Amino acid sequence: MKRFINASEDSVLETLAGFAACHADLVAVRLASKVATRREALTAGKVGLVSGGGFGHEPTHFGFIGVGALDAACVGTVFSSPSVAQILEAIQSADAGAGVLLIVKNYAGDVMNFKVAAQETAVPLEVVLVSDDCSITPQPGAQGRRGMGATVLIHKLAGAMAQSGASLTEVARVARKVSACSRSYGVALESCVTPNTGKRIFDVASDEIEVGVGIHGERGVRREKFAPAKDLVALMLEPILMELNLQPGASVLVLVNGLGATPLAELYLVFNEVKIILEARGVGIARSLVGSFLTSLDMAGTSITVLSMDEELLRLWDAPVCTPVLRWGM
Amino acid sequence: MKRFINASEDSVLETLAGFAACHADLVAVRLASKVATRREALTAGKVGLVSGGGFGHEPTHFGFIGVGALDAACVGTVFSSPSVAQILEAIQSADAGAGVLLIVKNYAGDVMNFKVAAQETAVPLEVVLVSDDCSITPQPGAQGRRGMGATVLIHKLAGAMAQSGASLTEVARVARKVSACSRSYGVALESCVTPNTGKRIFDVASDEIEVGVGIHGERGVRREKFAPAKDLVALMLEPILMELNLQPGASVLVLVNGLGATPLAELYLVFNEVKIILEARGVGIARSLVGSFLTSLDMAGTSITVLSMDEELLRLWDAPVCTPVLRWGM
Repeated sequence: MKRFINASEDSVLETLAGFAACHADLVAVRLASKVATRREALTAGKVGLVSGGGFGHEPTHFGFIGVGALDAACVGTVFSSPSVAQILEAIQSADAGAGVLLIVKNYAGDVMNFKVAAQETAVPLEVVLVSDDCSITPQPGAQGRRGMGATVLIHKLAGAMAQSGASLTEVARVARKVSACSRSYGVALESCVTPNTGKRIFDVASDEIEVGVGIHGERGVRREKFAPAKDLVALMLEPILMELNLQPGASVLVLVNGLGATPLAELYLVFNEVKIILEARGVGIARSLVGSFLTSLDMAGTSITVLSMDEELLRLWDAPVCTPVLRWGM
Repeated sequence: MKRFINASEDSVLETLAGFAACHADLVAVRLASKVATRREALTAGKVGLVSGGGFGHEPTHFGFIGVGALDAACVGTVFSSPSVAQILEAIQSADAGAGVLLIVKNYAGDVMNFKVAAQETAVPLEVVLVSDDCSITPQPGAQGRRGMGATVLIHKLAGAMAQSGASLTEVARVARKVSACSRSYGVALESCVTPNTGKRIFDVASDEIEVGVGIHGERGVRREKFAPAKDLVALMLEPILMELNLQPGASVLVLVNGLGATPLAELYLVFNEVKIILEARGVGIARSLVGSFLTSLDMAGTSITVLSMDEELLRLWDAPVCTPVLRWGM
């Protein structure tokens, strides 16, 4: 499979080096440890926000570092959690005396390493576990639901709360509210190609799609026949709307997220279908975000995230933000 | 080929409807005519900026409408020029009494329709023809070089000049300077799929790439063996640097542009290779832009654009801009 890479083992560092050079005005990347922080000095007394995960989700995680969002992030190898040492370094870097919020997507490796780091640090912490993927029915003893697009929303919304000077308890409350009030669902048209093997992880027939995919190249929960966009969107939205139990008059934020190889034009078309369905139910789209924000290497596919909004979340969403990916109000 | 679309003939309007709903705060889209304008009223006496072209290049053209950039744009069908009527409507919409600059990429259909519109309107006009693709050696009587990434840079830089209150002559001077001082080169790993046929326009062998591609799904100027990113970047940069004749100490803006299906992580890796080559030649990267800004449907590939910078262009680049795609300084 053809990709713009050199030796596969150099991909992560070479990508991060490019990111670092491109966004040096906002983000300071430490290539040796693959930990990145805001360019400017920490604000004493501000709660720190730390996120992280495997490589292959760009622009997540480093793209959300900046004013009104993350203070530090760390990235592992392809689809693998950062190490405990990396997480500890990120926590130290984000600590400005008011404690740190750890934003952890619910994947086994991430949960384990962030948990160990949380036990080893002396910095006061809160941890929010992101598990917004509603394609999975939680089973006793299983890992449960995966973290998806809500991660992006928590970076922004809890980030705005921290920037406003709120306490660690308050910042964690907002992060948990976003996690509780949002649901995501993803479908893939094609698997991604891992740099290590140069091959697709799985094959999808030309008339089929993979339904209920996460962001680590894994198979979905089932396979369905390929269909027009409006049917695929209905398939994704149905479980989201059922779980969020949105009534006419409700107000939501919609994130239509590309998984890597799906062009922006198609994401706008998907967003249009989301809008048609929500309008028919009397649900208003208060804010929206369309683009490839949380990817799975070069997977062709999309995920939809819906967050039930209230006054507080609206205010936090509109608050100034300045990161490589999200920039407004300043 | 699987895509997030419904009936292929509805793709353009459904995509624009999604864009319109997503960016209603900044851009007003008239779906009936496929012409879009800034949301806020025109500033009397400001030079208007109009751009346009075929569909399939998203976020170009509508994504660059806003403060410090375009005032109006129009879009045709897939890879086809907007009509004379659309262009005339865009000119009228952008006219605030100080004349209008037309930004036209050098493709036969676009040039013809913009030319006719320019003859038919009473609005004082300047026209800049963008032809930065240096993979083509101009031949007498032929169409010549195609417009590529410089289009994006002109939207921003001439847009900032117009926003500063400069005259039509001055705004056109900046646009022509950008066009003269920039070069682009593109390569494709895979062809794009047209919505009409659902098929790739051409096939590229698994160990080959298409060198010197434009943004309309056409074949490149030649075929080469697939190679590591650093070799592909050298292949693209070599003719650019030769033509721009950059000396040690020179300062440039680099745009690494994805053609549709190439994920952001790979674009950062490409940017890293550009940086390595430029540093070795003593050329400094003053500003950079990495992302998918001017696409060719879902083509897998990238184009590199280099603009030779001076004090004026640096000031104009850093000036505030607020569009769906570019936002900073405000």
